Amino acid sequence: MVPVDRPEQHNGGQLRRVSVPRRSFLKLGGALAAGGFAVKTDIARAADAPAAPPADAPWSQMLGPGIDDRPYGVPAKAEADVIRRHVPWLTASRESSVSFTPLQDLNGIITPNGLFFERHHGGRPSVDPDQHRLMIHGLVERPLLLTMNDIMRFPSVSRIHFIECPANGGMEWRAAQLNSLQFTHGMVSCAIWTGVKLSTLLDEVGVKKAAKWVLAEGSDAAHMTRSLPLEKCLDDCLAVYAQNGEALRPEQGYPLRLVVPGWEGNVNVKWLRRLKIGDRPWFTREETSKYTDLMPDGTARGFTWVLDAKSVITFPCPEKPLTKPGLYEVRGLAWSGKGKVKEVHVSVDGGVNWQRAHLEEPVLSKALTRFTLPWRWNGQPAFLESRAVDETGYVQPTITALRKIRGTNSIYHNNSIQTWQVKPDGSVLDVQLA
Amino acid sequence: MVPVDRPEQHNGGQLRRVSVPRRSFLKLGGALAAGGFAVKTDIARAADAPAAPPADAPWSQMLGPGIDDRPYGVPAKAEADVIRRHVPWLTASRESSVSFTPLQDLNGIITPNGLFFERHHGGRPSVDPDQHRLMIHGLVERPLLLTMNDIMRFPSVSRIHFIECPANGGMEWRAAQLNSLQFTHGMVSCAIWTGVKLSTLLDEVGVKKAAKWVLAEGSDAAHMTRSLPLEKCLDDCLAVYAQNGEALRPEQGYPLRLVVPGWEGNVNVKWLRRLKIGDRPWFTREETSKYTDLMPDGTARGFTWVLDAKSVITFPCPEKPLTKPGLYEVRGLAWSGKGKVKEVHVSVDGGVNWQRAHLEEPVLSKALTRFTLPWRWNGQPAFLESRAVDETGYVQPTITALRKIRGTNSIYHNNSIQTWQVKPDGSVLDVQLA
Repeated sequence: MVPVDRPEQHNGGQLRRVSVPRRSFLKLGGALAAGGFAVKTDIARAADAPAAPPADAPWSQMLGPGIDDRPYGVPAKAEADVIRRHVPWLTASRESSVSFTPLQDLNGIITPNGLFFERHHGGRPSVDPDQHRLMIHGLVERPLLLTMNDIMRFPSVSRIHFIECPANGGMEWRAAQLNSLQFTHGMVSCAIWTGVKLSTLLDEVGVKKAAKWVLAEGSDAAHMTRSLPLEKCLDDCLAVYAQNGEALRPEQGYPLRLVVPGWEGNVNVKWLRRLKIGDRPWFTREETSKYTDLMPDGTARGFTWVLDAKSVITFPCPEKPLTKPGLYEVRGLAWSGKGKVKEVHVSVDGGVNWQRAHLEEPVLSKALTRFTLPWRWNGQPAFLESRAVDETGYVQPTITALRKIRGTNSIYHNNSIQTWQVKPDGSVLDVQLA
Repeated sequence: MVPVDRPEQHNGGQLRRVSVPRRSFLKLGGALAAGGFAVKTDIARAADAPAAPPADAPWSQMLGPGIDDRPYGVPAKAEADVIRRHVPWLTASRESSVSFTPLQDLNGIITPNGLFFERHHGGRPSVDPDQHRLMIHGLVERPLLLTMNDIMRFPSVSRIHFIECPANGGMEWRAAQLNSLQFTHGMVSCAIWTGVKLSTLLDEVGVKKAAKWVLAEGSDAAHMTRSLPLEKCLDDCLAVYAQNGEALRPEQGYPLRLVVPGWEGNVNVKWLRRLKIGDRPWFTREETSKYTDLMPDGTARGFTWVLDAKSVITFPCPEKPLTKPGLYEVRGLAWSGKGKVKEVHVSVDGGVNWQRAHLEEPVLSKALTRFTLPWRWNGQPAFLESRAVDETGYVQPTITALRKIRGTNSIYHNNSIQTWQVKPDGSVLDVQLA
């Protein structure tokens, strides 16, 4: 991102970030949204009016490959640049690193499995599903060692949830110059997960009265290990074996992972091999040297599991500039680790005025939510922002407000409002308004 | 499938297919489902009780590949047999044929793009998205020729809908012996589709008063062409460019297809290049020689677009037998072209008694719906069936009831109840009860 002065300072005026009452949102939104999005003078005018059907294209004149050609399909060749990408300088090794999902190219709320962001700490293990076991032990009546077949026989549930690495946006704390939606927000993805409720498995082993915590351990080379409160495990956590219908992908924990809805990605332990029940947290490496934030007073925030409400505009963005003045649909994603997204507000003037965006159904708890808003770009510079409000009433903050509380040493949990500056040529810059 | 006598005839009794009142469903279901699915004497007893954590597996002792290894991910090697399959004798050519989705391996309600069933009539064309155009003309005020960029600028919507080929189950009309869920029901899949409402595009061109029908034409070598009532087009049809988040796959119509929610797959024209507005249907080849059914009285049913309510048990099934007596979760899929699935009933005795299954949220209109029911298999022969009821009150029929009306010449629209016979050794057969 690039530090930029707020637009009101350019204008020399006294405009403030104001809260527009609901009635005004509706009025403002309605003026553009009602009556079928009157683009007749715009998108359509730019298109040709044909006299006769166009001539056959080359692909209309010959048979293509038959149905036995690709038993497992792949994307079109023309989509070859829709891929996960990594930042080479971000981590010391590529085995403990992250690849970002191309949010700028995605639609709806489901991330295709091939593009779901990756975060490994010891590379992507090749687990043999027939040899894999899940052990559940500790403060339980009856420890168990379960095969994948055992696990798949339990009652199953399918739930749509996002997973976000708490380092998503971490480079923005210190204003790295990436100018990319993929790199500012690409550590969040969303899928429909199928598995067994942890409450079902814990009921099976019989948790003892003294139990308060659960240790989850991965079978990767990093032996990823995290402590989770028993209460959360019994609430909505899942031992998951399928993602978007098919078996988990290797980089997503095949054959078994934890899904901890709404909590930071790191606790959604992949290649899950062990759950130990105890009466206190274990304070693992990932709970001391990592996944904590150094506060201004020298203390560290720890066990910062919950991902607060966040949103980002996915069109336009640095990778998808505007081509010419006219009507567009601003599109974006919002999510909250505390439940459903209630509202998303969009500003085109750097947070001075806000309009309420349309939320696309289904709006699900702890899942990505797609928002849209029609916008006529007049060719002048603009500052696009989105602001999520979740069902608890929590409002997504500015980076300035976050820094006031957290200081400048943080890496994790930057859920601040993203500002995209639209330049007169239609290009889009990642900026932070002072 | 294999013709088999009804179980009541085996028993020599007078049992009839009875309608069990709602109160009894709840009671029957509740007895098994309540109290956390008491599997303690079953699945868990079969598992080992470990004394100490298991030794590290080989994959836990070495780093795996890093995050730059696969910019676009692929399934685990151990899942290599989870693929689309075709029936070589079913069609004269592989360019005009079908590949079936492996429902026996899938979970939840979303079909991964790589496994979505395929139906081509002239092979899979390789369309250049920059050269592709959609023409809208005929009885309109202002014909248009739109580029993909034009189309993507219009207001977008994302909707979860199934697509089913009306020939799904067609081989069962004449009792082909396939013994496979993949081949009896694998011509149905479900995705989240993103695109533009047809009503938006038709508003843009200005439909004339005399208009009643829309011709949709594909740019494949078969020039797939179908007539659709204008009313349906204005209701809920979409011009779609994305599927499960990413661009349409080539075999699904890249870069643009029609999605006609709840109507037979063939009218969801792929590689869509033209919409012509008219005042009467065109009676294309696919509306005369194909996609009609010869009735007993010699007439043909035509324009049979709507897919009536249907369901199938996906576990157990021929490809996924039972291993030993004990508690299982019966799992399946239900759908209706007329709206939401309201209830699914499951029988384990060939339709004599029925229990109401649990429907997994979200239950969406014209989308696959996942149902589950706990079932203790006692090792005796069983006849598993599922029966969908949709929100219009329509009840999925038996094949016998369908044949009474349609005769024996039909190919399309077999939405009858599927019977799986569970043999004492746990194997599962596709049967039709006489």
